[in-house]
Amino acid sequence: MGGMPGVILPGNSTVELREFPVPEPGHGQVLVRMKASSICGSDIRAIYREHLGHGPEAYQNVIAGHEPCGQIVRLGPGCKRFREGDRVVLYHIAGCGVCEDCRHGYMISCRSPLRAAYGWQRDGGHADYLLAEESTCVLLPEDLSYVDGALVACGFGTCYEALSRIRLSGTDRLLVVGLGPVGLAAAMLGRALGAPMIIGTEVAAGRRSLAQELGLFDVVLESNDAALGRVLDATDGRGCEASIDCSGSAAGRLLALQGTRDWGRCAFVGEGGTVSVDVSPVLIHKQITVYGSWVTSLKHMEDLVERLVRWGLHPERTVTHRFPLCDAAEAYRLADEGESGKVCIVFDP
Amino acid sequence: MGGMPGVILPGNSTVELREFPVPEPGHGQVLVRMKASSICGSDIRAIYREHLGHGPEAYQNVIAGHEPCGQIVRLGPGCKRFREGDRVVLYHIAGCGVCEDCRHGYMISCRSPLRAAYGWQRDGGHADYLLAEESTCVLLPEDLSYVDGALVACGFGTCYEALSRIRLSGTDRLLVVGLGPVGLAAAMLGRALGAPMIIGTEVAAGRRSLAQELGLFDVVLESNDAALGRVLDATDGRGCEASIDCSGSAAGRLLALQGTRDWGRCAFVGEGGTVSVDVSPVLIHKQITVYGSWVTSLKHMEDLVERLVRWGLHPERTVTHRFPLCDAAEAYRLADEGESGKVCIVFDP
Amino acid sequence: MGGMPGVILPGNSTVELREFPVPEPGHGQVLVRMKASSICGSDIRAIYREHLGHGPEAYQNVIAGHEPCGQIVRLGPGCKRFREGDRVVLYHIAGCGVCEDCRHGYMISCRSPLRAAYGWQRDGGHADYLLAEESTCVLLPEDLSYVDGALVACGFGTCYEALSRIRLSGTDRLLVVGLGPVGLAAAMLGRALGAPMIIGTEVAAGRRSLAQELGLFDVVLESNDAALGRVLDATDGRGCEASIDCSGSAAGRLLALQGTRDWGRCAFVGEGGTVSVDVSPVLIHKQITVYGSWVTSLKHMEDLVERLVRWGLHPERTVTHRFPLCDAAEAYRLADEGESGKVCIVFDP
Amino acid sequence: MGGMPGVILPGNSTVELREFPVPEPGHGQVLVRMKASSICGSDIRAIYREHLGHGPEAYQNVIAGHEPCGQIVRLGPGCKRFREGDRVVLYHIAGCGVCEDCRHGYMISCRSPLRAAYGWQRDGGHADYLLAEESTCVLLPEDLSYVDGALVACGFGTCYEALSRIRLSGTDRLLVVGLGPVGLAAAMLGRALGAPMIIGTEVAAGRRSLAQELGLFDVVLESNDAALGRVLDATDGRGCEASIDCSGSAAGRLLALQGTRDWGRCAFVGEGGTVSVDVSPVLIHKQITVYGSWVTSLKHMEDLVERLVRWGLHPERTVTHRFPLCDAAEAYRLADEGESGKVCIVFDP
Repeated sequence: MGGMPGVILPGNSTVELREFPVPEPGHGQVLVRMKASSICGSDIRAIYREHLGHGPEAYQNVIAGHEPCGQIVRLGPGCKRFREGDRVVLYHIAGCGVCEDCRHGYMISCRSPLRAAYGWQRDGGHADYLLAEESTCVLLPEDLSYVDGALVACGFGTCYEALSRIRLSGTDRLLVVGLGPVGLAAAMLGRALGAPMIIGTEVAAGRRSLAQELGLFDVVLESNDAALGRVLDATDGRGCEASIDCSGSAAGRLLALQGTRDWGRCAFVGEGGTVSVDVSPVLIHKQITVYGSWVTSLKHMEDLVERLVRWGLHPERTVTHRFPLCDAAEAYRLADEGESGKVCIVFDP
Repeated sequence: MGGMPGVILPGNSTVELREFPVPEPGHGQVLVRMKASSICGSDIRAIYREHLGHGPEAYQNVIAGHEPCGQIVRLGPGCKRFREGDRVVLYHIAGCGVCEDCRHGYMISCRSPLRAAYGWQRDGGHADYLLAEESTCVLLPEDLSYVDGALVACGFGTCYEALSRIRLSGTDRLLVVGLGPVGLAAAMLGRALGAPMIIGTEVAAGRRSLAQELGLFDVVLESNDAALGRVLDATDGRGCEASIDCSGSAAGRLLALQGTRDWGRCAFVGEGGTVSVDVSPVLIHKQITVYGSWVTSLKHMEDLVERLVRWGLHPERTVTHRFPLCDAAEAYRLADEGESGKVCIVFDP
Repeated sequence: MGGMPGVILPGNSTVELREFPVPEPGHGQVLVRMKASSICGSDIRAIYREHLGHGPEAYQNVIAGHEPCGQIVRLGPGCKRFREGDRVVLYHIAGCGVCEDCRHGYMISCRSPLRAAYGWQRDGGHADYLLAEESTCVLLPEDLSYVDGALVACGFGTCYEALSRIRLSGTDRLLVVGLGPVGLAAAMLGRALGAPMIIGTEVAAGRRSLAQELGLFDVVLESNDAALGRVLDATDGRGCEASIDCSGSAAGRLLALQGTRDWGRCAFVGEGGTVSVDVSPVLIHKQITVYGSWVTSLKHMEDLVERLVRWGLHPERTVTHRFPLCDAAEAYRLADEGESGKVCIVFDP
Repeated sequence: MGGMPGVILPGNSTVELREFPVPEPGHGQVLVRMKASSICGSDIRAIYREHLGHGPEAYQNVIAGHEPCGQIVRLGPGCKRFREGDRVVLYHIAGCGVCEDCRHGYMISCRSPLRAAYGWQRDGGHADYLLAEESTCVLLPEDLSYVDGALVACGFGTCYEALSRIRLSGTDRLLVVGLGPVGLAAAMLGRALGAPMIIGTEVAAGRRSLAQELGLFDVVLESNDAALGRVLDATDGRGCEASIDCSGSAAGRLLALQGTRDWGRCAFVGEGGTVSVDVSPVLIHKQITVYGSWVTSLKHMEDLVERLVRWGLHPERTVTHRFPLCDAAEAYRLADEGESGKVCIVFDP
């Protein structure tokens, strides 16, 4: 089918557009015409600035973009469910499919050498076409846009998993620490799961403003030394029944734990860095449970897109900037500033 | 303090008003000036029409009314938390406090001979004053009315327990079978816990109308042979992720189970009667979990009143008829018809 | 590779041995040399006596045997984990692999038209060779025998799932109703999960004797009107904290529920028939939770074989009769009597 | 009843024996003839060496000993369950009984000014008699000794809670970090809950020897830089499915987390100090859940003594040294060395 442009990230805060052949789907594979391919904090942290990752986060000079969404235009042999014309989100890691972890849908944890994440170890979504495994396709309901779907592929999926794991419901006020795109996703999904009050805290002024404008939070606070006091003030001195750290910072995680009410649950999804805790007062005497939560499963991503339709929710609301593929450099530069909402590369706009 | 009128239910569908002395609180007891005392389906089924109960449901010719709410006007010695002037809901069973079941707050399950339920084995709320154990008092927040509180004492507490036990959240559509006061409570709480869609089914036309008027349901259906099909139609052929039977009937329970989606959870709270099930298709192949759920715990009742305020919910909305104590006979007659919403005796209106 | 004999079950309590070609593995398939292929109660109930099943239990005149275990002798193209020489248990249903249910490993619930169970809708284990999907292979550890593996494929897998779902541990006494092969599996796994006391009840004298001999139970009782009393006697009048019905009978299920202690959990795995319950005393006032549980997932089957090794357990202990393939008729006749332990067809003995 | 000697801990690593009047039980109180009163790590850490505690751990110069067990010899008025002659363990904190936390049995978390822990804010077990609230009495079964009971009052109760919270069962290998008395309790209970393999790690050689002698562990390791590697070696490179930190040290907690298998659960019960963690590799990518767990509830303590009998377990096995009350100074000196098993003051030996 000829050639196509695709984005390579050399790791020095630049973006290269190169020409690639359009791939042919093999057994159990599909060719996806890309429609939306958003940028994740991990792309910035571990690839764009510098190739930091190793293991499942080692970037191997492939076409970037691990949040792809598009339409199937060609089927390889042996496909069992999807058809040409289907709109699909891509679960962003293709595992072997037959190991212990893949077998309950957590391809993220696949330990086979065959495991490859789109945009990390195999070509990702920043190109006109994506060669994908049928096993990673999640049907995008008609009511959701392609941009909605791209955001589900990583950030919304990750938040949904974490909020499910802490069993968030209407009984819980939710504290969200870190209001980048993942924090916004946490608030949006937290409200849909029932949280009657959502408090957000963030260091960056621009992100606090955006959070305010989007109206996803009851209270937006600056993440500083006074934040814990203000969280407690807003919650009768008790803290929130549930919390989630999306900041990936030591200070943010501690705030999330300290802002959690006795018997509460706290999820960590923000990547990188450390946390240091006085265990007796922060964890033991408060009877707190802390969940490390990594990405999500295929099944839960299916559950999520079904729920989004029911809830009438559009992840796309958290997108502040859209760029065509040819402006990928500008997209990455902007995402790197850390003051915006979600940045998304869109095709056929 | 002189005498006071109180309601006795002889068990022949009549109501007797008799004169009683105003009681004096002993150690650990409080005297409560009654403000609201609602009528529960169990009062009708097991006392008013006929004294059917035995064990924890044996009515012992005491002042009726097991959903009392009022204001503390006198403290006995040894009280540890509550004070004169406190507005209180009464958890409706006074257990021994020191057995295995009381010790996690489920006084309902106390097996001590000291166990006595208000309105069943010890004087209840259908009188100007109630002699109560401090151990059964739950502080009624200012934002809730006394009628709100009365409804929490049994029905709303029972529903909250059941919906908590099935972990209802925004991921779940909820099927409510039986739209008497308990079914209305289930819908109100189900929405607050996050359910994005609530379907109700009911035999009685009057109750269906009321459910419609209150706007608590997305769909209200007649409970008949066509109901299951209509539940499935309203849920993409899958059924609701969660269901609750408030009908206490065999047909209702079966409908609740059959209307539950694969992997779903169903709670039974409606009392009496049986259920008969084809186990493989209804329970096993659908991977269904069924919860028998009886009343609630003291801790969960505390949790509930706290949440009601946060949610801005007023159980009182489900009350269709209020009567002064002197018209208790009319109140019971009306409740017995089974076409109304909640019926409540109110004091000092 | 020439021909091979295979068993067909015409549905009139006979067994036919026919000649079949040895199949060739296609993409993602493996050829398994059969080593053990046991007989399940469902084979008797729904195929051997009469073709009763429909849907996932409709027998389509294929080679019977849905509990296969053997060794991979040939790989089709595209296999990703398994190799020639690997010893494998077969998860007994091949689903599409990409639907919602397959995606968390519950191929049993796959709704694709591609779904086919070995021995029901596609050729099963009663032949020298089995054509299997790699996606259904579970690696059999060296410490387990092929017969062990065959028993995992259905019965032990099903019990492990149910006992996991009710979270059985050392805090729980376990009541097992129905002491056929599945009941024996429940006891064996229940002990390994920690149950300090296991009570079994069974109608058939032969099965009670076998249960006694195997030493898997602390108490073995006849399932009759006195059984409930004796279960209570053996448990301080309280019943068992956990129970499982493996009888598939209405009386058995009721006994399981009634023999469950307040706040206890009961799993139903026995197929067929009904249950009828007085809901208030049996479920609500006892705060009982009932789990319908169907088969297991691929992930949990992997977990199970890993644990069996750690526990030093051999499912094979429950096998009382072994037959070569040519004596399959006798094997089925014996299994049909319902007085034996597990009956297994073995190859290359 | 005259006078009695009792132990005061001045906070300078000495023990004072003073004379006290024998108390009279008031309403809802009982007088307990002490039989066993063991020493807890918290007594050493926060009272004996120095009065470090504040809040719920502030020692107020009362008779020490927060692990009391004895026999009721006198009842105050208003007792509802217990009788003279009853053998009782004391839940070691007397809460108000009517706050939110007391109402589900977690008197440990009571926030009423009335809350007082035996041996911290009200007289404890290091005297001939103890004035106790009936609400804190747990009936000691005949099969358990008084020393067994004393050990349940704090350490075994705390471990049982934590192991219940992580839902330990036969599916889990257990890693116990810190082999003081609490660590020994964790192993003993862990085995009874079903753990097929238990690995212990400890800094002190004496404690490792004791752990070996008691035969409670499959593997006992020195807590050092090599420990993690050896834990992984003993578990196929995967780590234990469940872990518990009883060391209260930063290094110990990190070892517990790192020695936990993917998807595993880790409980923290050891008090004091901090923990510092690389969040992505240790918690997120391993999908780990961490439970802060503080003491236990009255209900769970009742459950525990019931289970101990069923399991035939005697916590007393972990006691290495017994002293009469007059030798309390020697008992504390020995416990302070941190190389022994449990140290217990016994009466009427």
